[in-house]
Amino acid sequence: MAAQIGFIGLGIMGRGMATNLINAGYEVTVYNRTRAKAEELQTMGARVADSPADAAAHGDIVFTMLADPPAVKQVILGHQGVIEGLKSGAILIDCSTVDPETTASVRKAVEAKKARFLDAPVAGSKDAAAKGELILMVGGEPETLEEAKPVLDVISKKIIHAGPSGSGTMLKLCFNLVVSHMMAALSESLVLGTKAGLSPQTIIDTLMTGVIGSRFYEWKGSCVLDRDFTTNFSLKLMHKDLSLISSAGYSLGTALPVTAAVKELYAVAKGLSNPDEDFCSVIKALEQVAQVEVKRS
Amino acid sequence: MAAQIGFIGLGIMGRGMATNLINAGYEVTVYNRTRAKAEELQTMGARVADSPADAAAHGDIVFTMLADPPAVKQVILGHQGVIEGLKSGAILIDCSTVDPETTASVRKAVEAKKARFLDAPVAGSKDAAAKGELILMVGGEPETLEEAKPVLDVISKKIIHAGPSGSGTMLKLCFNLVVSHMMAALSESLVLGTKAGLSPQTIIDTLMTGVIGSRFYEWKGSCVLDRDFTTNFSLKLMHKDLSLISSAGYSLGTALPVTAAVKELYAVAKGLSNPDEDFCSVIKALEQVAQVEVKRS
Amino acid sequence: MAAQIGFIGLGIMGRGMATNLINAGYEVTVYNRTRAKAEELQTMGARVADSPADAAAHGDIVFTMLADPPAVKQVILGHQGVIEGLKSGAILIDCSTVDPETTASVRKAVEAKKARFLDAPVAGSKDAAAKGELILMVGGEPETLEEAKPVLDVISKKIIHAGPSGSGTMLKLCFNLVVSHMMAALSESLVLGTKAGLSPQTIIDTLMTGVIGSRFYEWKGSCVLDRDFTTNFSLKLMHKDLSLISSAGYSLGTALPVTAAVKELYAVAKGLSNPDEDFCSVIKALEQVAQVEVKRS
Amino acid sequence: MAAQIGFIGLGIMGRGMATNLINAGYEVTVYNRTRAKAEELQTMGARVADSPADAAAHGDIVFTMLADPPAVKQVILGHQGVIEGLKSGAILIDCSTVDPETTASVRKAVEAKKARFLDAPVAGSKDAAAKGELILMVGGEPETLEEAKPVLDVISKKIIHAGPSGSGTMLKLCFNLVVSHMMAALSESLVLGTKAGLSPQTIIDTLMTGVIGSRFYEWKGSCVLDRDFTTNFSLKLMHKDLSLISSAGYSLGTALPVTAAVKELYAVAKGLSNPDEDFCSVIKALEQVAQVEVKRS
Repeated sequence: MAAQIGFIGLGIMGRGMATNLINAGYEVTVYNRTRAKAEELQTMGARVADSPADAAAHGDIVFTMLADPPAVKQVILGHQGVIEGLKSGAILIDCSTVDPETTASVRKAVEAKKARFLDAPVAGSKDAAAKGELILMVGGEPETLEEAKPVLDVISKKIIHAGPSGSGTMLKLCFNLVVSHMMAALSESLVLGTKAGLSPQTIIDTLMTGVIGSRFYEWKGSCVLDRDFTTNFSLKLMHKDLSLISSAGYSLGTALPVTAAVKELYAVAKGLSNPDEDFCSVIKALEQVAQVEVKRS
Repeated sequence: MAAQIGFIGLGIMGRGMATNLINAGYEVTVYNRTRAKAEELQTMGARVADSPADAAAHGDIVFTMLADPPAVKQVILGHQGVIEGLKSGAILIDCSTVDPETTASVRKAVEAKKARFLDAPVAGSKDAAAKGELILMVGGEPETLEEAKPVLDVISKKIIHAGPSGSGTMLKLCFNLVVSHMMAALSESLVLGTKAGLSPQTIIDTLMTGVIGSRFYEWKGSCVLDRDFTTNFSLKLMHKDLSLISSAGYSLGTALPVTAAVKELYAVAKGLSNPDEDFCSVIKALEQVAQVEVKRS
Repeated sequence: MAAQIGFIGLGIMGRGMATNLINAGYEVTVYNRTRAKAEELQTMGARVADSPADAAAHGDIVFTMLADPPAVKQVILGHQGVIEGLKSGAILIDCSTVDPETTASVRKAVEAKKARFLDAPVAGSKDAAAKGELILMVGGEPETLEEAKPVLDVISKKIIHAGPSGSGTMLKLCFNLVVSHMMAALSESLVLGTKAGLSPQTIIDTLMTGVIGSRFYEWKGSCVLDRDFTTNFSLKLMHKDLSLISSAGYSLGTALPVTAAVKELYAVAKGLSNPDEDFCSVIKALEQVAQVEVKRS
Repeated sequence: MAAQIGFIGLGIMGRGMATNLINAGYEVTVYNRTRAKAEELQTMGARVADSPADAAAHGDIVFTMLADPPAVKQVILGHQGVIEGLKSGAILIDCSTVDPETTASVRKAVEAKKARFLDAPVAGSKDAAAKGELILMVGGEPETLEEAKPVLDVISKKIIHAGPSGSGTMLKLCFNLVVSHMMAALSESLVLGTKAGLSPQTIIDTLMTGVIGSRFYEWKGSCVLDRDFTTNFSLKLMHKDLSLISSAGYSLGTALPVTAAVKELYAVAKGLSNPDEDFCSVIKALEQVAQVEVKRS
């Protein structure tokens, strides 16, 4: 409980995670590029750092929650970055979703500082982050995970040890692959059926009846029918993840023909509508093409 | 309870459905192209017909459960087909998964005989058919559905009235679209992760944890890990359905880019392995390309 | 030279073909659904028929040049259709691009009338039709082709005997497959390069330099740069052909993964812009997504 | 003519290029990872260097012709790499096909050494390299290109100035995008038609007749029909280029749905057959799926 925590990256997810750590009684030093977001947490008791290095220097455990590989490279490996401040023996936990190469280069830099590293991307929405109910997919040494566990328990309801360093990143990509496909499948099904005159609610109800039923279809289906595209996870970030998955497939010699099509569908949607809306707005591209709107009748 | 039933098409699904109708006490006249399959039901009390027309002539309610549009056209509309024997006032219930055009031409022929028609494709596996726990997606007049309901209840645990004639067919296509995508997504995820060194069981467990969790992933994932490709629904039939969905998308002016990729993945799998195995064997094509096998370690 | 000719279908292509036959001195009886188009040819010496059957009844050789399989089925096989009027011994030459199944059913109907049949779809633009410089891909008996050759020479600069009945149709699908891909490839290349700051003219010039050079890239590239989408062959018809190709691939057990993606790109383009414009307007969909316009600087 | 040249990378293409420079009378210092390939050129008069830095130190003009971005990063930017040896004022000409980011990082490193840089990827086969008939797509300052022109003329028949630094790389990606698509289109067309009973030679002849005709179809079509998959440009390298194109599309916000499908087709082919064979062997994957072989009858 004596641990000091550095937390870098206060976006949709990071903000909820850092708040929970503060509320759990940890001394948390936060950093965010847009300083205003860090200062909001100051009122809750956080210390605001001037740089990623500064935040890292104040942590026995340091979290990073960043947008993409370039951000990770700059904020962790760059000038005044995390590595510069990281204490020997500290644990860096990167919760960002990145590619295996980026994870490997961070690990290498961490080890050069005689610190330890966990890649720990998360599954779960903004709500789950706020409630401390994320799912963590962790790659790294079991001992390191064991040591970090009390802190990780504050932000998560389930911790999956995926394997050695890099496995968390890879597992997250495998997970988001399926999420992106399910939203694409739901979208194509809803647009096709609605265009044919079916009630979209009936389609969703039918998907829920059988062995394929998933709360995801009810949740995202309702968002679509209510035309509520408030961002839990943006179109832009899902497209980014699909690009990472595609690259991983190339590196590993795995053909991913459906993922390739899903990725391009998100690319089309990003170009035709708002990239910052929730990824369920991918349906808008298909609606625009088919000249139909899927909504509650 | 006095109703006489004609049942045509005793494949994996049809056999279970017809058996339940016999066991429920109905007088059932069955027809199957390969007569031996019909004769198996004779021992349970069914009468065996010499032609689809003959089976239809003995039914107040007539079921057809056939492989694809050409089979429906031949067995229902062709020489000695169902239409030739169908009694005025009878109800023809086509449980086959076909395209909207085929459904429309059957309906027209049925109406010309002053009989009534329901398109009622089913969701559910061989087991569900055997247990009378199918899900029915029904298109047609509410009165006709009401009249047929006691008989339909014997074979199903849930009846969804999709809308006017043809809606059952369309809803089934929307449903199978999602099923085919989920299997493709699971396959690409498992092959990618396994190639990267993850445990496939961990991937499946992770998919089950969050909001995207679905019994489908556990079920088909286990089949893959156990290398058990026993057919519940064949690769060949799923490919056929994807072809019907693709045609429906074309007719309705709906772009289905992901479905197009899924369809071609099943085409590749059909060519590289056994088209009569369960559709979860679609993963074999990806495994062969990536030179990895997804199995229990 | 004594031959009487029936000509049915006076669209972009048919009109040029029929005009050449009239100008070559044949007695031509024309039919078009929109009668005004037929009457334009009357002033050049054509007789105007009241029905496809009527036009067919006046032909030793009967041409059909129709939009798609449903049109062929109705105009040739339907009420007052070509078959009703076709004379014993006459030759029906279907220049429409359809699927093998449609061609087969027309051939069967023609043979039942003791007439002969050639499937002879054409390659070439509106200009080539007007100049009698089409390329014909002919399926059917060599003797029948020999007999029709003097008439076919009037409308074409090259006749390719593809093989037995149905081969012309199939060869045309193989041909248009490549055409549709080349336009898609050109479009993706131009949009990518232009977005990156290259001159699109430089891209086209580069494509022309090497072994891949094709007049097609110059021609369609210029149309795009001039923003001239005047229809030679419409987006809608190319999408239709891609749907026929996709179905043929399914029937033959051939995976066509790239064609599937091309087909969906045309579907998207059809939904986002004008389906009646030239198929080179497929680039507009990609431009809209990338928020760039490919034009002469 | 007094210029000294360093040449690094003696693969299929590099070997022919370096040979031409030697034969033109330049003092050429060569380096290759597998030293034996460098020593072959020693007999023609080349000096063999011990490292990329060593080769670069002996060049007023330094060429690199490497496989992919990781190779470029290691051989140019890495330990004992080109940059270490590059003389102030020298011109580095990178003929490798890489991504815009890699080109940008090389340019930056070159400028830091007060040297100059051209990205100059090539189009053309092994034969064209051997004959000095490559096409060069050059990005960089016009003055630098002017100065290098006499040397570039030795290896090329056409030099296209694509624009500022990086434009050569981008133009090459746009070019190879089209090449990869044309081979995919030819393959799908040949497999579909052959499966339908057409003569593949007839398909190739037909493609050559119209406006779409390209020597590429004759050349690669003949290779396929002769089952001659001798490598001019390997499946593996084309797949690599498609991966670079896909990444460029992502970075630029351009949807490339057909390229995505083409990329996955090459991925499948790479997994099912020999990645080192010529890229026209991509057809083998489609043949294996369709269970047909496209060959001269």
